[in-house]
Amino acid sequence: MFKLKRMLVVSFVLVFVLSFTCLGLAEDVVKYFPKPGDLKYTYGPHKPVMKIKPGTVIISSTEDCYDGKVKKPTDKPSEVMELWKDNPLTGPFYIQGAERGDILAVHIRKIEPARTYAISSYGPGFGAITGTEYTAILESPLPELVWWYEVDKDKGTVRYKSLKGNTVMDIPMKPMIGCLGVAPAKFEHRWSVTPEAYGGNMDCPEVRAGNTIYLPVNVPGAYLFFGDAHLVQGDGEIIGYGVEAAVNVELKVDLIKGRKISWPRIENDEYLMTLGMYRPLEDAFRIATKDMVLWIAEDFGLDMMDSYQLVSQVMKAEVSQLVDPNYTILVKFPKKYLPEKKPVFGGVHDKLK
Amino acid sequence: MFKLKRMLVVSFVLVFVLSFTCLGLAEDVVKYFPKPGDLKYTYGPHKPVMKIKPGTVIISSTEDCYDGKVKKPTDKPSEVMELWKDNPLTGPFYIQGAERGDILAVHIRKIEPARTYAISSYGPGFGAITGTEYTAILESPLPELVWWYEVDKDKGTVRYKSLKGNTVMDIPMKPMIGCLGVAPAKFEHRWSVTPEAYGGNMDCPEVRAGNTIYLPVNVPGAYLFFGDAHLVQGDGEIIGYGVEAAVNVELKVDLIKGRKISWPRIENDEYLMTLGMYRPLEDAFRIATKDMVLWIAEDFGLDMMDSYQLVSQVMKAEVSQLVDPNYTILVKFPKKYLPEKKPVFGGVHDKLK
Amino acid sequence: MFKLKRMLVVSFVLVFVLSFTCLGLAEDVVKYFPKPGDLKYTYGPHKPVMKIKPGTVIISSTEDCYDGKVKKPTDKPSEVMELWKDNPLTGPFYIQGAERGDILAVHIRKIEPARTYAISSYGPGFGAITGTEYTAILESPLPELVWWYEVDKDKGTVRYKSLKGNTVMDIPMKPMIGCLGVAPAKFEHRWSVTPEAYGGNMDCPEVRAGNTIYLPVNVPGAYLFFGDAHLVQGDGEIIGYGVEAAVNVELKVDLIKGRKISWPRIENDEYLMTLGMYRPLEDAFRIATKDMVLWIAEDFGLDMMDSYQLVSQVMKAEVSQLVDPNYTILVKFPKKYLPEKKPVFGGVHDKLK
Amino acid sequence: MFKLKRMLVVSFVLVFVLSFTCLGLAEDVVKYFPKPGDLKYTYGPHKPVMKIKPGTVIISSTEDCYDGKVKKPTDKPSEVMELWKDNPLTGPFYIQGAERGDILAVHIRKIEPARTYAISSYGPGFGAITGTEYTAILESPLPELVWWYEVDKDKGTVRYKSLKGNTVMDIPMKPMIGCLGVAPAKFEHRWSVTPEAYGGNMDCPEVRAGNTIYLPVNVPGAYLFFGDAHLVQGDGEIIGYGVEAAVNVELKVDLIKGRKISWPRIENDEYLMTLGMYRPLEDAFRIATKDMVLWIAEDFGLDMMDSYQLVSQVMKAEVSQLVDPNYTILVKFPKKYLPEKKPVFGGVHDKLK
Repeated sequence: MFKLKRMLVVSFVLVFVLSFTCLGLAEDVVKYFPKPGDLKYTYGPHKPVMKIKPGTVIISSTEDCYDGKVKKPTDKPSEVMELWKDNPLTGPFYIQGAERGDILAVHIRKIEPARTYAISSYGPGFGAITGTEYTAILESPLPELVWWYEVDKDKGTVRYKSLKGNTVMDIPMKPMIGCLGVAPAKFEHRWSVTPEAYGGNMDCPEVRAGNTIYLPVNVPGAYLFFGDAHLVQGDGEIIGYGVEAAVNVELKVDLIKGRKISWPRIENDEYLMTLGMYRPLEDAFRIATKDMVLWIAEDFGLDMMDSYQLVSQVMKAEVSQLVDPNYTILVKFPKKYLPEKKPVFGGVHDKLK
Repeated sequence: MFKLKRMLVVSFVLVFVLSFTCLGLAEDVVKYFPKPGDLKYTYGPHKPVMKIKPGTVIISSTEDCYDGKVKKPTDKPSEVMELWKDNPLTGPFYIQGAERGDILAVHIRKIEPARTYAISSYGPGFGAITGTEYTAILESPLPELVWWYEVDKDKGTVRYKSLKGNTVMDIPMKPMIGCLGVAPAKFEHRWSVTPEAYGGNMDCPEVRAGNTIYLPVNVPGAYLFFGDAHLVQGDGEIIGYGVEAAVNVELKVDLIKGRKISWPRIENDEYLMTLGMYRPLEDAFRIATKDMVLWIAEDFGLDMMDSYQLVSQVMKAEVSQLVDPNYTILVKFPKKYLPEKKPVFGGVHDKLK
Repeated sequence: MFKLKRMLVVSFVLVFVLSFTCLGLAEDVVKYFPKPGDLKYTYGPHKPVMKIKPGTVIISSTEDCYDGKVKKPTDKPSEVMELWKDNPLTGPFYIQGAERGDILAVHIRKIEPARTYAISSYGPGFGAITGTEYTAILESPLPELVWWYEVDKDKGTVRYKSLKGNTVMDIPMKPMIGCLGVAPAKFEHRWSVTPEAYGGNMDCPEVRAGNTIYLPVNVPGAYLFFGDAHLVQGDGEIIGYGVEAAVNVELKVDLIKGRKISWPRIENDEYLMTLGMYRPLEDAFRIATKDMVLWIAEDFGLDMMDSYQLVSQVMKAEVSQLVDPNYTILVKFPKKYLPEKKPVFGGVHDKLK
Repeated sequence: MFKLKRMLVVSFVLVFVLSFTCLGLAEDVVKYFPKPGDLKYTYGPHKPVMKIKPGTVIISSTEDCYDGKVKKPTDKPSEVMELWKDNPLTGPFYIQGAERGDILAVHIRKIEPARTYAISSYGPGFGAITGTEYTAILESPLPELVWWYEVDKDKGTVRYKSLKGNTVMDIPMKPMIGCLGVAPAKFEHRWSVTPEAYGGNMDCPEVRAGNTIYLPVNVPGAYLFFGDAHLVQGDGEIIGYGVEAAVNVELKVDLIKGRKISWPRIENDEYLMTLGMYRPLEDAFRIATKDMVLWIAEDFGLDMMDSYQLVSQVMKAEVSQLVDPNYTILVKFPKKYLPEKKPVFGGVHDKLK
């Protein structure tokens, strides 16, 4: 009897403790799988699909950049898609407690193809080495073309097939999210195809699993959107499209209160990264490099000129894309050269991963 | 008796005819004078302040680019203005019958200073030959400064006074409207400071009395906005501000159905004009010149290459501004060189003026 | 006897004085008419064709930009011209006493067509709104075409004829010199088609009769070149060619000792002008506007920020050309707004004209 | 006896064969170590320092970019250097048989520091995120500063020391040659600081040991120059200087007859690379990417559009520098994705290495 009681008490305590531990360890997880009508086509303070707390894991999915309308190799995007409905976005998620002057941290855990195919294409007026809506030229446009890629999830590859001739090639997947952004500053709603200080269609290969993306919060709730995944994309995205796919994603979001950044940044185990997204390409480059020089100076105890010198010698600079309404430059600083070995933004990347 | 009867009949007929003529001539006129809370800070489909018919004359007013908050020479814009509330806009006016693929024609009849002073300034981060938010540099910024201009309506001048030394100079007014735009394409709401294909903060000296501005209609109702008048502005607007003023305006609007343009155009008695507003400046230039070459080819019966040759020899190209989030290039083609002497857009400019 | 002697002495003195006066007033005039083999294709310290003193008038001629090889409407430049032999240059003239840090002033007195025809053309890879060697695109090029203009010296016009259809139009001549330059800095020899700080192929309509052009001297003797006249040219020179012609010219050169400029400037009775020639177009614009702001500040007694404000409100900015290896921006400041009414560069323009 | 004879014959034959083989294998090697007065400051057809045959190995040295005039940490480049004498060049070497339309292949075998120190600096008017001669701004310049790096050849590192504070860090050397070029096209002599189609101051980290650089031949003899080595340099070279050093180099040159390229290319075991060097940065990018798309199409049997698609998905794009008179973009295509496994340019890289 006494034993039983004791056992009951112990059991109770154990259960209690375990529950607490679990509660402590247990992540808040939300699942959200949008239907076509739920998708958005601008970054802005739309009615949120969900309000979530910092620390929440989002399990969700994104449609491909063709709005899911290109369903077979003979579908031409210009014929099957509705006007302006490129890059459909999942979201927005309202982050509780987020205010202008905070940073939204988004750690990407997983990006997986949702279908057995992926798509790329060329469309007149969109490309890095062709005439466009803005780089206006008089020459006749190139033809609209679609390349159909089979996805082999087991091998982790997509299959390139030339339209003329018989070239076939398997390319390893490096899934990334093209669009990741928040509601813009300046009361704006921006088209899903445009990247800028709010993130958006950055089309940057480093927005991938394992990396933490930092976005400036412009309005209360931040309003997180994502979409436009690529299974493969080269630097520059010169034909205007990566290997475009619908995907399933898992993200974990957190909030850094009272710390302001002006442009998106990225962190992984090896690099600190800054992004500049504007035109001309020089200005995109200037934005990203100045941001890196100041970051190293301000957070890691170097004088500005000393930071300028150090960054100049060790940084990497990649052209992520030169096709969207603003261009993307990615600057990378190897963490091994940080003057002080201290956690970045209070260690949020280590915490999230 | 007979004579009297005859005279009566004649009188009656005359009165009748005159009345009809007057009815025909009588314009629809609306008056709208916004209060501070009525002003808008983005181009987009806001709730209209008024729905008007094509042919309507709008008598209205605009606040200055400082949102009316700079009230004396010692007020610094960065201290007295609210965040992002630059270039407050009057409107929008919903134009009945306007649909995507139409042109909204806006003829400017009058722009008159509403106060006895006007203002210009320099603010760090905004200027054509200084570092900016996008042309990111490491040098220390120049100081914020305000120049106060007295307006002499009788002489038609504003008075420039140097801040250091005693240089005083009267400059003839050439009032213009900096912001004239419609709701953007692509579901966007764009900040009042940004020009693009929808018009907006074009900061072009040719948006002035006597000229007709053509804007593409993107959404039903068009949604017309205006604001940010300058009493004087040089090409380039290199310090970031013209001689900024609140003004009273009189505009007449009309609709050209079923005729699509991609970028704003302007017409006056002497010139056809096209505008390109983007970055880099080369692309703004390309947009405007290609638009002019195609306009002359398509509407005036020249082969494209012949138009290219002709436009190349007679066009004028001015840099309207190099400070806003997109830059403005203005291209002018003298009407005397038009290959065919036919009315432009069916003669709407002549009708409106 | 005595009288006679006296008269003789007086006569002698008079003759002597008059001779001296005349010598003083009489301009040094040189004539130089190059043959094909005398033409140059780079700006650089070539063996001078002549050494002249400051104050000398040069009466000379220039070949057209096609090296004189396009002799009939069916001659294609790409077929009849030798490699790289565009824009043949007359000169160089060695200016005695010119040293680095001086200014060479060139006043243009006359530019007259030397033939009864002039030529324009389009050639693939060269144009403002087409793909080029540098703005590399994948689209197929437009066709090479030649437009043949008849010159009517009496009416002062050239005759435009469309290649397709029957459009014919007389356009008033505004003759200008496309190429005016000196030996470059930095030990360089630059191609005749490229403008930069040394002047060169500026393709600026303000290099015309009545105007004085100021060029920085980089090497002893300056080495003046000129060529590539246009009878007509629109801003932008968008097809790559003005109405190109061989011309006869009359220039007067002078030297401003010990006054350094970094980029060419122009003066006429109405305007001070600065030129920026580089890429991107933004930088060309920045060069010219900064140069103007500093010119007004340094020579006319305004604080730099006050000059920035004044120039911003009254300047004009034109895109002279967007086709050459560097682009040209022209900035104009109306002399009536000069803060001090003092001679520019010691009054050299008034002296030369 | 018979055996002896046979052995003698065999020996003789063996010796004969071996001798021939050795003669065949023996490289032509030239050594050239310039003295200060031998250095050049432009790319152009200077009197050759040596005429060499294709296949020759050059053992030589280069001075640092400061012309060897900065000899201690307190020497300011602006004070100790002569005007325009940056980036002194070793050469030119005249390559026998080289003609316009050939390719000069330069394989780099070795780059080794020649001193125990290396230097970096900041100088006003030169930098990627500061005002420059061309990106003209009104702000006050940053100070001229010199960073002195100790070189540890054994560890293969250079030592970064902050000027303020006490940050010290060893950075592994990755020696590269900043300047590698030939005489330009268009009769030009170009300053040693400027890169363009002739190569020159490309400041590209891939001009390093193990890689083969392909340069277009513009004039008979090609005229090869090199100089301006960096022991370390980040992408962008944002402060205007790498870790600059005098070095000893070993290069092997070869000639590919009758194969024309327009811009430099690079090959190593892993990548094909193209380079675009111009302004704006967009155009540098366009030059390099178009060149890659056409290279893959023309040499490896893909249709142009299929090549455009493939390159778009697998290429890398790096900003090598954004400080020189022209900017450098480097595009890399992984050889593993070549549609046909055939030797590049006839296998010259494999032959040279």
